[in-house]
Amino acid sequence: MTSKTLVCHASAEYIAHMLSVAPHMLDHPNIVSELSGVALFNGIDEATLQQFAQAASLRTEPKGKILFIQEDEAEWVYLIQRGWVKMFRETMDGAEAVIDVMTAGHMFGDNAVFENDSYSYSAQVVEQVQMIMFPVSVLKKAIASNPSIALNMLSSMSRHRQQQHLEIEHLNLQNAPQRIGCFLLRLCPADVGQSLNLNLPYDKTLIAARLGMKPETFSRALAVLKKDGLIEITGASVFIPNVPHLVTYTCDHCSTAFPCEDLKG
Amino acid sequence: MTSKTLVCHASAEYIAHMLSVAPHMLDHPNIVSELSGVALFNGIDEATLQQFAQAASLRTEPKGKILFIQEDEAEWVYLIQRGWVKMFRETMDGAEAVIDVMTAGHMFGDNAVFENDSYSYSAQVVEQVQMIMFPVSVLKKAIASNPSIALNMLSSMSRHRQQQHLEIEHLNLQNAPQRIGCFLLRLCPADVGQSLNLNLPYDKTLIAARLGMKPETFSRALAVLKKDGLIEITGASVFIPNVPHLVTYTCDHCSTAFPCEDLKG
Repeated sequence: MTSKTLVCHASAEYIAHMLSVAPHMLDHPNIVSELSGVALFNGIDEATLQQFAQAASLRTEPKGKILFIQEDEAEWVYLIQRGWVKMFRETMDGAEAVIDVMTAGHMFGDNAVFENDSYSYSAQVVEQVQMIMFPVSVLKKAIASNPSIALNMLSSMSRHRQQQHLEIEHLNLQNAPQRIGCFLLRLCPADVGQSLNLNLPYDKTLIAARLGMKPETFSRALAVLKKDGLIEITGASVFIPNVPHLVTYTCDHCSTAFPCEDLKG
Repeated sequence: MTSKTLVCHASAEYIAHMLSVAPHMLDHPNIVSELSGVALFNGIDEATLQQFAQAASLRTEPKGKILFIQEDEAEWVYLIQRGWVKMFRETMDGAEAVIDVMTAGHMFGDNAVFENDSYSYSAQVVEQVQMIMFPVSVLKKAIASNPSIALNMLSSMSRHRQQQHLEIEHLNLQNAPQRIGCFLLRLCPADVGQSLNLNLPYDKTLIAARLGMKPETFSRALAVLKKDGLIEITGASVFIPNVPHLVTYTCDHCSTAFPCEDLKG
């Protein structure tokens, strides 16, 4: 049963229940406020935001939940508020390529608007997620009728394209320890000091897949970083004793400087 | 001296000379007809096309010519009519990452509109190129005032994003011979028969870089393809004796089927 079927045939309480959301959370003023903080809605008038909010739902989903499958008819655009979602594609022979892992503030499913209303990848929750979802049809109408929405979407696609250029560059030029270094540095706050403790946001097997490595390559690369004194790691907890050292080790092999431009908001 | 300076201070003949273009080629009806065939101008009215054509120039450049450098102020958007152009970025330590190599029908420099009017990569001619170039400022105004241009640009960015997803997938999952197989199959016409002769479009060192391989990895991978009877190669000439075999070898390890959707126009 798809989410669309639920919306068509069920009461608001049932929808809320099925979406694992308490009914009081389906609260439009809150959604308007959340949406207004997202790049797509930058400078967008209150009336348009209200249209999105009225069509929107809040949804929480547990780790492991498949949100949609590549080539599914696209019904919803998702905006992550908390948690992590993996986007992946399957090859003809059943291997899985992780093309992105997104967290709070990121939107996915939006490009279905330009892809015959079908999703071009599958999406699965990797750490319990809370999301705002609104119909693809509402976004589609807004893009066609509101030039500001179209321009905001162009800006955000352009930023995404830049990040993909960087990712292709790293896959071409950086070795495995450097790609892990980059992954860790992108988790650091912009005002990071000399040293830092952080937690890996999701499990190591997925980090390896996200970075295009086999698990054994990932383990060997972590061992290199530890041996060189660049990180200490216990379970999911990572200590970077000297951030500038890790920056030199990693970012000298990148075409942009630390901290990454695209993370500055 | 930048191209912008030329436009400000030089006569049309001098511009044509400096741009290596015969003056008779700066011919608006021809440019209008060329532009109308490009996705960005799909369904766009004649008056808008005329605005672009009036601001446009034709330009040919020889192999090796640097068109612009990453972080240059962006003045021109380029539409390739013939030849090949490489887009690349340099890392802090001087290595070069080839992020794309484009040919006829493709546009580059356009995303500068959303990146503070600066180019996010460098561009160099790899096989003599003929291009139409028009000012970034003209595109910028058209995007803001003409919703159809903005929508066309969104569609084309979305297609590009799909291709990048596929490229990241291949860098993650395909081995070197499979990535070369994919490169060759993307050069085949959609109605390719059982076997095919084709010429490599640019030199092998660049193909290797484009595919994220060291030259020696590329040579070893070519040898594997030859040994398995999938290709015969002499200089730049490649014979594929059994296209379906190469498709099975390559496209079984990809999430899309042959022929690639994005090449269908």
